[in-house]
Amino acid sequence: MGATLQLRSLTAAAIKSPLRSTCFLPVQTTSLQARRAFSISKERAMLSTELTEAQVSALRANKDRLARDLHHTCQWGDGIRWGDGHTDTGMQRLALSEEDKQVRDWFVETTKGLGCNVTVDAMGNIFAVRPGRRTDVPATFIGSHLDTQPTGGRYDGILGVLSGIETLKTLNDMGLETEGSVGVVNWTNEEGARFPISMISSGVWAECIPLEKAHALKEVPTVASLPTASSAPESMKSALEKIDYLGSVPCSYKETPMAAHFELHIEQGPHLITAGQQIGVVTAVQAYRWFRLNIFGRDTHTGTTAFEHRADALFAFARMMVCAREVAASHGCLASVGIIEAKPGSVNTVPGTVSFSLDIRGPKTELVQVVETELRKDFDAIAAEEGKGIGKPCRVEWTLDFDSPAVNFHPDCIECVQQSAEAVASDASVADPRTLVRTIMSGAGHDSVFTSKRVPTSMIFVPCKDGLSHHPEEFCSADDCARGTSVILQAVIRYDRKRFST
Amino acid sequence: MGATLQLRSLTAAAIKSPLRSTCFLPVQTTSLQARRAFSISKERAMLSTELTEAQVSALRANKDRLARDLHHTCQWGDGIRWGDGHTDTGMQRLALSEEDKQVRDWFVETTKGLGCNVTVDAMGNIFAVRPGRRTDVPATFIGSHLDTQPTGGRYDGILGVLSGIETLKTLNDMGLETEGSVGVVNWTNEEGARFPISMISSGVWAECIPLEKAHALKEVPTVASLPTASSAPESMKSALEKIDYLGSVPCSYKETPMAAHFELHIEQGPHLITAGQQIGVVTAVQAYRWFRLNIFGRDTHTGTTAFEHRADALFAFARMMVCAREVAASHGCLASVGIIEAKPGSVNTVPGTVSFSLDIRGPKTELVQVVETELRKDFDAIAAEEGKGIGKPCRVEWTLDFDSPAVNFHPDCIECVQQSAEAVASDASVADPRTLVRTIMSGAGHDSVFTSKRVPTSMIFVPCKDGLSHHPEEFCSADDCARGTSVILQAVIRYDRKRFST
Repeated sequence: MGATLQLRSLTAAAIKSPLRSTCFLPVQTTSLQARRAFSISKERAMLSTELTEAQVSALRANKDRLARDLHHTCQWGDGIRWGDGHTDTGMQRLALSEEDKQVRDWFVETTKGLGCNVTVDAMGNIFAVRPGRRTDVPATFIGSHLDTQPTGGRYDGILGVLSGIETLKTLNDMGLETEGSVGVVNWTNEEGARFPISMISSGVWAECIPLEKAHALKEVPTVASLPTASSAPESMKSALEKIDYLGSVPCSYKETPMAAHFELHIEQGPHLITAGQQIGVVTAVQAYRWFRLNIFGRDTHTGTTAFEHRADALFAFARMMVCAREVAASHGCLASVGIIEAKPGSVNTVPGTVSFSLDIRGPKTELVQVVETELRKDFDAIAAEEGKGIGKPCRVEWTLDFDSPAVNFHPDCIECVQQSAEAVASDASVADPRTLVRTIMSGAGHDSVFTSKRVPTSMIFVPCKDGLSHHPEEFCSADDCARGTSVILQAVIRYDRKRFST
Repeated sequence: MGATLQLRSLTAAAIKSPLRSTCFLPVQTTSLQARRAFSISKERAMLSTELTEAQVSALRANKDRLARDLHHTCQWGDGIRWGDGHTDTGMQRLALSEEDKQVRDWFVETTKGLGCNVTVDAMGNIFAVRPGRRTDVPATFIGSHLDTQPTGGRYDGILGVLSGIETLKTLNDMGLETEGSVGVVNWTNEEGARFPISMISSGVWAECIPLEKAHALKEVPTVASLPTASSAPESMKSALEKIDYLGSVPCSYKETPMAAHFELHIEQGPHLITAGQQIGVVTAVQAYRWFRLNIFGRDTHTGTTAFEHRADALFAFARMMVCAREVAASHGCLASVGIIEAKPGSVNTVPGTVSFSLDIRGPKTELVQVVETELRKDFDAIAAEEGKGIGKPCRVEWTLDFDSPAVNFHPDCIECVQQSAEAVASDASVADPRTLVRTIMSGAGHDSVFTSKRVPTSMIFVPCKDGLSHHPEEFCSADDCARGTSVILQAVIRYDRKRFST
């Protein structure tokens, strides 16, 4: 977290910038309010640090353009149809698939067109940087991901990246120059759906996951409708090469430094929508651990083997899953199984081997540990019972695939988001707009978890219908998308001002 | 069951056959006892109906040859290794695979070499018939299957077919002619592991399953290590064509009639081995029903969705499986799940769809019905509970894939097996050899279930180690294999005598 302090030491010299001679007239202004606020400055180039607080608070994204761009990108990898409308489909854009390549190409072309310098690193992360007045300091980034779950929706990740592009477009429209550069990053394989470690590429960037491990990671062959499911499983490296996104820049926060990382995301939970609130100021991310478990029992005939003569790995699994929910709930945590495989997979053979994923989450790292410890004991007991009749009880093995301790976001970033959220919420006709804003903890992991380990980071949540996510019907209204984008736009400007003001 | 009566009406004219001039000298006699018993008849051809009861009781299979032949055929499709010995591997010979073709070719070549007429029907069933003195009546068949489970052993099915071949070899050795012909049949896809209806080809032969349905049946794509898993699923018809076993003979008991069907099989359960008994005289087969169930819930994010906001299809499944065992056990029945698939199959998505197989078995057809009725109610209740918090509870759908009511075998066949079993058991040095023989019910389905619907049928069980089956370590000693084969050899001769004696 030392990065901000270091950067801030530069600000004293930076604030007194001369007025700029070039003038960017807004091509398409974003709201009446914004137009009014900025009319005073049309005669000259604007610099972020020279704006008044009111001018910052008046910044708004262009709702229609954002919606158009977002749904435009969903042509690549559109998934299950759930309604009659043009955009009533889910998404199925697995990381590094052909569809992912197409949307990446669009991202590169679009950001270059907006005047960005674009680099791709060894994990295929794409960094598009709109140069600020000062090029000797790292950019403030807006980041998220363009890959989706196999039966995902149009907003998880996608909205975050598109909010970055809309921010760049708005800055260009406004002719607004920033002190530090502003970047947008598309992180590779955030979902962990195709390559089964989520946020793996921000993890490599943060030097929390070794590059070699990530490059060698094999795709999950059983992911529903995986385009490559029928051929030999690809590694991340071979998949990157295949779509020509194995970049030459080393993947590290040292090679591609950031001043800060902001991320806009749908809540993926019911709190905002249920409370009728507009913006979640995310202060923390719950802890989670992902395990792969194997149960070893004994294949045997379903028709001739009495229950007491079985070591039925699938029956043991069923009991474990029931137990996992009970134990997790008793500690205010979550435990979920997303992947299961039973072998040999024949109607009349009792499965002798079962593999499954276990995802344990909780508000505190220690609570996740408590649930894990309890489940290890309980699962052993369940395994020991199944097969004891033949003296060959089941055996269960745990492998930790991923460990993400609880994260607290950076107070500077949280402050920028909070101020921006209140400013944007003031558009609503309510007595106290601050009631439309709440602080919130993220249940899901995001790339911001890894960036937070190296640079000041925070997130913004907007409501989604029914709190539903990882589902084709995942939905966030154009208004909510735009509100969240206006918040991130302001937050980036506020952070820039914070860096370069006394 | 009218077939026997009809055939028996032929016997009055048939018994008085002339002595035959050709003499088959035994190439390799099978036991000292058998040699002694038959020494009196070496001067002339022997006819089954002319043997004394003592001569029939003295018939024995050749243990070493049987073991050699059986393990010889296991070179095609040998599976998981579990010990150091030459034959210490399981089998993985899925129906109509390349390995299945190889063992079929061996079967055809071997039986032709033994003087059989070989025909292949439209389901790839192979019938090898050693002509008897009378060719105007159907043959008595020994039948079973050469296909195996994906992680199967060397005896389930294979022993049954090999016992038929050994019977032919022994008859040839002895120069023993039968009145009616003796046949060996290899039924296609008995296991139902690759094409998910077990005993499908004997079912078509019995005209209980329509040929079109069987031909159109698609292979299970998830069967472990299925050789064809990576390409588009084959239908049974295309798979038959691929290995050149789509025969020209219509598949029907009318086109390939049988006088009777005998089947030797490992018990696949612990009763014989636990009691130290040698032969099970199978009088009946328990009822069973196979279902495919689908649970429909809602995909959602594992990290952000509280338990009460989930419609977790996999959690509902887990509760159903636990419930199924309880309910089945309370009625003295079995309920098993062999196949499960959860979609979309991602670590951090709650599965919205689960499909699984359910195999319910019981000693009586009515009991299976009782268990099914109870489970339908219980599963509905479980589904209704999961997701009620969001007003979108899970939903469960049942499809009946296969219904096999309890079967009682034919008294004539049972009698032949009982007499033969007692005769073979008399080799043991025990006070009362009959204690080594028991009547038993089959827990598993076999092709004999379908043949019993059209012709007199029964089965013979021999012990297998630990009662284990559908497992690479499935094991039946060479002695037990030979004993069972001696019983089926005698049973066929006894049945032949029964048909053609007054």
